[in-house]
Amino acid sequence: LESGALLQAGKMLNALHPGEIAHLLESLPMAQREMIWELVNEENGGEVLTLLADEVRDDLISKMDVSELLAATEGLDTDDLADLVQELPRTITQEILDSLDQQHRERLEAILSYPEDTAGGLMNPDTITVRPEVTLDVVMRYLRRLRDKIPHQTDILMVVNRDGKYLGVLPLTVLVTHDLDDTVAEVMSLDVRAIPANWDDGRVANRFEQHDLISAPVIDEEGKLIGRITIDDVVDVIREEGEHQFMGQAGLSEDEDMFAPVLVSTRRRALWLGINLLTALMASWVIGQFEATIEKIVALAVLMPIVASMGGIAGSQTLTLTIRGIALGQISGKNTRWLILKELAVGSLNSLIWAGVVAVIAGFWFNDVNIGLLIATAMCINLILASLTGTVLPIALEKLGIDPALAGSVLLTTVTDIVGFLSFLGLATLFLI
Amino acid sequence: LESGALLQAGKMLNALHPGEIAHLLESLPMAQREMIWELVNEENGGEVLTLLADEVRDDLISKMDVSELLAATEGLDTDDLADLVQELPRTITQEILDSLDQQHRERLEAILSYPEDTAGGLMNPDTITVRPEVTLDVVMRYLRRLRDKIPHQTDILMVVNRDGKYLGVLPLTVLVTHDLDDTVAEVMSLDVRAIPANWDDGRVANRFEQHDLISAPVIDEEGKLIGRITIDDVVDVIREEGEHQFMGQAGLSEDEDMFAPVLVSTRRRALWLGINLLTALMASWVIGQFEATIEKIVALAVLMPIVASMGGIAGSQTLTLTIRGIALGQISGKNTRWLILKELAVGSLNSLIWAGVVAVIAGFWFNDVNIGLLIATAMCINLILASLTGTVLPIALEKLGIDPALAGSVLLTTVTDIVGFLSFLGLATLFLI
Repeated sequence: LESGALLQAGKMLNALHPGEIAHLLESLPMAQREMIWELVNEENGGEVLTLLADEVRDDLISKMDVSELLAATEGLDTDDLADLVQELPRTITQEILDSLDQQHRERLEAILSYPEDTAGGLMNPDTITVRPEVTLDVVMRYLRRLRDKIPHQTDILMVVNRDGKYLGVLPLTVLVTHDLDDTVAEVMSLDVRAIPANWDDGRVANRFEQHDLISAPVIDEEGKLIGRITIDDVVDVIREEGEHQFMGQAGLSEDEDMFAPVLVSTRRRALWLGINLLTALMASWVIGQFEATIEKIVALAVLMPIVASMGGIAGSQTLTLTIRGIALGQISGKNTRWLILKELAVGSLNSLIWAGVVAVIAGFWFNDVNIGLLIATAMCINLILASLTGTVLPIALEKLGIDPALAGSVLLTTVTDIVGFLSFLGLATLFLI
Repeated sequence: LESGALLQAGKMLNALHPGEIAHLLESLPMAQREMIWELVNEENGGEVLTLLADEVRDDLISKMDVSELLAATEGLDTDDLADLVQELPRTITQEILDSLDQQHRERLEAILSYPEDTAGGLMNPDTITVRPEVTLDVVMRYLRRLRDKIPHQTDILMVVNRDGKYLGVLPLTVLVTHDLDDTVAEVMSLDVRAIPANWDDGRVANRFEQHDLISAPVIDEEGKLIGRITIDDVVDVIREEGEHQFMGQAGLSEDEDMFAPVLVSTRRRALWLGINLLTALMASWVIGQFEATIEKIVALAVLMPIVASMGGIAGSQTLTLTIRGIALGQISGKNTRWLILKELAVGSLNSLIWAGVVAVIAGFWFNDVNIGLLIATAMCINLILASLTGTVLPIALEKLGIDPALAGSVLLTTVTDIVGFLSFLGLATLFLI
C-alpha cells in the first residue's frame, strides 16, 4: 500500500517542470530532500541537478554513484552539462567525456576551456547557423528537417559565412513574415552584436538587459561563431549577482543552503564570527587604552557606542551605494572623484545635523555642555571618515581584485568602530581630564 | 564649430540602444546628465525614460513640459507607457490618454486598473492571438500581413477560443517546423500555463525562472486572455528584488540615484540615521542604568561592545538567510519550525565556540576568571537570542505586511545591542559587585 502511494507521489513529482522540482528540493530539510530526490526519475534528474543551488547540488551528487551520474547527464544541453561536470570529481568527468560522441565531446571541451564566469563558460555551442546566400525557403525546409532538434529558446538563427565568421542574425519573426524567395542576406539583422567569449558574465548580463536580448551569438578572437548565450542563463547570473551582494554583507555565500545540516552551517558561519571577533577585539583594545579616562567620567562609556554605531550606519550607506554602482558598471575613473566629493558632502551635512541633535541630548542628560561638544566633534570626525571610507574602500578593493561585497562591510566596521572610540575617548582625555 | 561637435555627439548618442543611453545617463553627475539628455532625440526619448531608474526618470520628467512629454510617449509599448504614466501628474496623464485612439486607451486603462507590482501591471496587452481551428498556412499569411507590427520578444502566439479564453500557445519554432496544412489545434502546446492577473510580480518571476519562459499569457478571473508578460520586464523585477534586499539593509531605496544632488541625498539618508540614532540612544540608556557598576569595574566598558557586536553579526547572518528564503518562496508554514530550531542549534553551537575563546582572552587580559565567565555567559545569551530573532522577526514582519528587507536590520540590531549590554552589565551587577 505504501509503495503504491510512493509511486503516485513520484508520478506527480515528475509531472512538474524541472525548475519546480529544484525549487521544491531547495525548500526541504535534508532528510525529506533525499527522500524526494529518490523519487525524481532519470529523465528529469540531470536537468534538476543543473538548476539547483550549488550547495544543494553538490550534496546530492556526493551521494550518487557513477552509473547514476552517467544516466543523469544523458540528454543534457551542452552548457548545462559543462556546469555540472565542473562540480564532479576528475575520474567521473573522464567517464562522462568518454560516453559522449566526438562532436559532443569537442563542444563540451570548448566550453570547459573558458572560465565558468565568462561568456565562453555561459554559452551553449548548439546553435542553428544559416548562410547569407540561401533563400528563406531553404531555411524553412532546413528547420523542418531539424524539427524537434531545434534548441530551447531559439528566437534567432545565426548567419555565418563560409569560414564560420559571424555576420548577423535571422530572427524567426523575420523568417515568418518575409517572402520565401528573399535571401537571408536581404532580410537579416545586423543589430545584434556578437559577444566575445572572454567577456565576464556581469558584462554579458548588462548587454542582455540593455538590448532586451533573448539569445546572443558568442565569437572567438577571430570573429568565428562558437556558440550562443540564452536569457535563462543570464537570468541566473543576475539573480546570483544580487544574492551575492546581499548575502556577502553577512559573510554568506549566495549558494548557502538554508536547510544544510547544523554542523555544516555552524562551521561556515563560525569563520565569519571569528573574523568579526578580531575586529571587535581591536575596538576593545582601543577602549582599553582609555580605562583611566573612563574611570573618571563614566558618561563616556555610556555614550561611546553612539559614536561608533552612527559612523557604521553612515559608512554602510555609502558602501552599499558604491558596491552597487561598481556591479552595474556605473563607476569609472571619470566620475570617482565626483562621487567621493559628493559622499563627503552628504556625510558632512548629516554629521552636522545629527551631531547637533546628539550634543543637545547628551548635554542635558549628563548636565554638562562639554560632554555635548565632545560627542558632537567625535561624531563629525567619524561620519566624515566613514563616508570617505565607504566610497574609497570598495573601489580600492575592486582594483586589488578583492571582492568588496564580501570584505567591504567588515573592514568598514573596523574603521568606524576604531575611529569612533578613538576620537571620542581621545578627545575626552585631551580636553576633559 | 561647437554646435557641429554637439550635432556629431548627438548622432553618436542616438545610434546607441535606448538601454545603453539609459545606463549612460545613470552614470553621469547631474549637470552632465541634463546636457546629454538634451541631445537624446524624440524617437529614443520615451523608451529611454522607461528604462531609467525611477529616481533619475522622475528628475528628468520634472524638467520636461507637456508637449515634450506627449512627444516622448508616442510609439511606446503599452506596458511601458503604463509605467511612465503612473509617474506623471494627473493633468498630463489625461492629456496622454486623450491623445490615444480608443483601442490604445482601453488597453492602457486595463493595465492601469491593476497594481504596478502584479502580473496585470507588468503585462502588455499587445498579443498576437490565433484560433485553434485555422491551419498554420493561415497563421503564416496573417503574420506576413502584420510584419513590422509583431511585438518585440514574440516567441509564442496565443491560442484563444471564440470567447477569448486562453487555450494554449503556438511557438514560432513549431510554426516553422510543421506542415502548413496542420491546424493550430493539432500542433499547439499546452505546457505554458496562463498567469492570473492578480499574481504578485515575485511569483511571476519565479514562474519564469522555473519554466525558462520568454513570454507568458496573462488571464483574468474568467480565463480570458488579457495580455502577455515578456522576459525583459521579468529581468527588471529580478534585478530590482535583488537590489531592494541589498540596499534595504542600509535603508536605501533600490531606485536611489548615485548622482542625486547633495541635498536630496542628505535628506534621504538623514531619516535612516535618525532612526538608528534612536536605537543607539536606547542602547545607551541601558548602559546608563549600570553606571555604578562600570565605575567599579572599568573592564566592563572595555569588553561590552564585543558582546553586542557578536550578537549583531550572528543575528544578521540568520536574518539575511531568512529574508532571502522568504523572497524565493522557500519558507512556508511547514518548514518554519524546522528552520527556527536549526538556526537556534547553529547559534548555540557558535555561541559556545566563541564564548569559550572570548572567555580565555578576557580572563587573561584582565587577569580575572570571573570576567571571563561573565562575558562567556552574556555572549551565549545574546547569540542564541540573536539567532531566534533573526528567524522569527522577518517571518513575523512579512506576516504583518512590513517589509523585512527594510525594517529587519534596524530592529535586529536594537535587540542584539540591548540584550548584549543588558545581559553583560546585568550579570556583572548581580554577581561581581
